[in-house]
Amino acid sequence: MKLLEDRILKDGKGIGTEILKVDDFLNHQIDVQLLDEMGKEFARLFAHTGANKILTVESSGIAVAYPTARYMGNLPLVFAKKKKPSTMPEGAFVTEVFSFTKQTSTPIIVSKNYLGPDDKLLIIDDFLASGSAGLGLVDIVNQSGAQIVGFGAAIEKEFQGGAAKLRNLGIEVHSLAVIKEIVDGNVIF
Amino acid sequence: MKLLEDRILKDGKGIGTEILKVDDFLNHQIDVQLLDEMGKEFARLFAHTGANKILTVESSGIAVAYPTARYMGNLPLVFAKKKKPSTMPEGAFVTEVFSFTKQTSTPIIVSKNYLGPDDKLLIIDDFLASGSAGLGLVDIVNQSGAQIVGFGAAIEKEFQGGAAKLRNLGIEVHSLAVIKEIVDGNVIF
Repeated sequence: MKLLEDRILKDGKGIGTEILKVDDFLNHQIDVQLLDEMGKEFARLFAHTGANKILTVESSGIAVAYPTARYMGNLPLVFAKKKKPSTMPEGAFVTEVFSFTKQTSTPIIVSKNYLGPDDKLLIIDDFLASGSAGLGLVDIVNQSGAQIVGFGAAIEKEFQGGAAKLRNLGIEVHSLAVIKEIVDGNVIF
Repeated sequence: MKLLEDRILKDGKGIGTEILKVDDFLNHQIDVQLLDEMGKEFARLFAHTGANKILTVESSGIAVAYPTARYMGNLPLVFAKKKKPSTMPEGAFVTEVFSFTKQTSTPIIVSKNYLGPDDKLLIIDDFLASGSAGLGLVDIVNQSGAQIVGFGAAIEKEFQGGAAKLRNLGIEVHSLAVIKEIVDGNVIF
């Protein structure tokens, strides 16, 4: 998606060979006009899947998944939580996700009230890197007995291999911007 | 806002005299059609303020603030973070917020890159209860030298006093649903 690639080149900050920061328009300050266009594009790419629900993970994932849900006909949007809220009822699907950036493991949690065997889920997230978070979301969906009909990432760091892992599970993956490599902080699509 | 009040009565879960859970449509599963209408209503209520930026706090705040930013003419939307990300640059406004529900204190953080003296901020959040989170956001804006032109809450628990505290600071506050009390789990507007 050229609009997103151009914005990454203009306002993204590559660091070393692994990190891309997009705090200017996605991860801290949100450009809702850009994200709306991204949601429209996800809706087009996944229109054929028959998804009846969107799953993402807090926090930035919500900003990408919200317009996607809207353009797919106001689908229900469920966001996984990164820690168990004090008011969550008993009964939740839980998995552990390791973050290479933060070098820590975080639980992600979805209440059993919001996923079940009748659901056809489109998973949406902001980044797809090593695939840890993505595989965590897949694990949660599998625990619920629901079907995964697609996985959409705003920004994929192809060289970290996550998209390949998801495709090896038979999942249809689309990323709006695919980064081949980051060289001395310079992003190469 | 009748649409939201009706939804709270239908799908909200009151607990005791203090707690209202709205995981069905706001805090875990999101009804994007409802939230879109809520954003439209905030945009109408705050149209006269001349806001040039929206501030909220992760995670559920993002889902309320996103459509508000869109209907106010695609304003930039900044969300405060609840812990310092590994990749945040030096220089951030920080404050501590005490949660009565969780009985813990949490930092909230905004990078200095995204707030400054030229900004006229509309603060949007999902809940306004005792006002701890709201006053934390106000403190962050004050640290930045920006101006606060309004505060919008999706759901206000009037009996917990937060809205009064904000109005005492001279802030214009609008809540889309104002709960007078919760009696044996029953919500009374």
